[in-house]
Amino acid sequence: MHRLGILLSGRGSNFLAIHQATETGLLPDTEIAVVLSNKSDVPGLAAARERGLPAHHIPVAGRTPAERDLEFIQRLQQAEVDLVCLAGYMRLLSPGFVAAFPNRILNVHPSLLPSFPGLDAQRQALEFGVKVAGCTVHFVDEHLDHGVIILQRAVEVRDDDTAETLSARILVEEHKAYPEAIARVLSDRYHVEGRRFLPRGGDLR
Amino acid sequence: MHRLGILLSGRGSNFLAIHQATETGLLPDTEIAVVLSNKSDVPGLAAARERGLPAHHIPVAGRTPAERDLEFIQRLQQAEVDLVCLAGYMRLLSPGFVAAFPNRILNVHPSLLPSFPGLDAQRQALEFGVKVAGCTVHFVDEHLDHGVIILQRAVEVRDDDTAETLSARILVEEHKAYPEAIARVLSDRYHVEGRRFLPRGGDLR
Repeated sequence: MHRLGILLSGRGSNFLAIHQATETGLLPDTEIAVVLSNKSDVPGLAAARERGLPAHHIPVAGRTPAERDLEFIQRLQQAEVDLVCLAGYMRLLSPGFVAAFPNRILNVHPSLLPSFPGLDAQRQALEFGVKVAGCTVHFVDEHLDHGVIILQRAVEVRDDDTAETLSARILVEEHKAYPEAIARVLSDRYHVEGRRFLPRGGDLR
Repeated sequence: MHRLGILLSGRGSNFLAIHQATETGLLPDTEIAVVLSNKSDVPGLAAARERGLPAHHIPVAGRTPAERDLEFIQRLQQAEVDLVCLAGYMRLLSPGFVAAFPNRILNVHPSLLPSFPGLDAQRQALEFGVKVAGCTVHFVDEHLDHGVIILQRAVEVRDDDTAETLSARILVEEHKAYPEAIARVLSDRYHVEGRRFLPRGGDLR
């Protein structure tokens, strides 16, 4: 059984999509082992508890980044997770955190990276005037929205789009792309060549 | 009749796609008034002459940028062009050139801008490891691959893609997108709001 650790800071809609994929067989032999949040009282934590999943708030205030990271790392290691999935986790991970799970932390970002890293990617995209937007599931490294790309999905920008309507259509793609990307990483049929995430040994080529 | 001026430096495959669109009615009431190249003996100039189109080589060597630009501008003005279309024209336009045709110069770039401006965009995209590539038709301003975006088309990156195979699939989309973008600009039903190219007055919303 593959074990996932989820980090979130809000409603955790991608967490719910991943959880559903583990229940429906889209993500076979996979379970969510622990859900962690840097914020208390967020809907994502409550949703995790409703589903009977171990869920913990890890306080940030009044602690050094090293203390905070240590608790995250210990919780994830105690839960014996194979993969850490960020699902609306709104903090940059420290280099020590990233190093503790090499090539084992994933995130989803609401743009076709390398375009529009950082906050408010959908608004950035609209203001730049792109006609194609999308989402990216990628490995996390110590740079913002920068690690190796696992999967991307394009979303057409409509003439009447607002940041809200565009975000909603991108989110639909995120919810499909994230479980699919997790399945690819867990399958062990892919590896990283330079910055490319490719099938091993030409078995899918 | 709308009149187009084409600038190229090589085979001019996008020029040929635009020319075909003027012949087949995809670009109605539109003709190519002049084809200019900064290089002699390129296939694009020969192809223009075969089609009976006015075609001129404008030498660059031994002339100042101002002298060179002046000849381009004069040739385009003499041909009474409504729109200047760069089709594989491998030089950055001077601010004076851009200012002579405000919001009237188009280019196509083989990436989903703002990702991968500059040379070898397809190779940049592969090396960065994106899973979605594409092309962008945009207005030209004095910055490299930066003007307002008229139209973009996404192209899936395949696991076995090389720069050559990816470029070939993107080029197919360029040949469809460029005439369509020209038609939108000439239709006068669109205008620029900030950096967004949108239908006027909500007539298409």
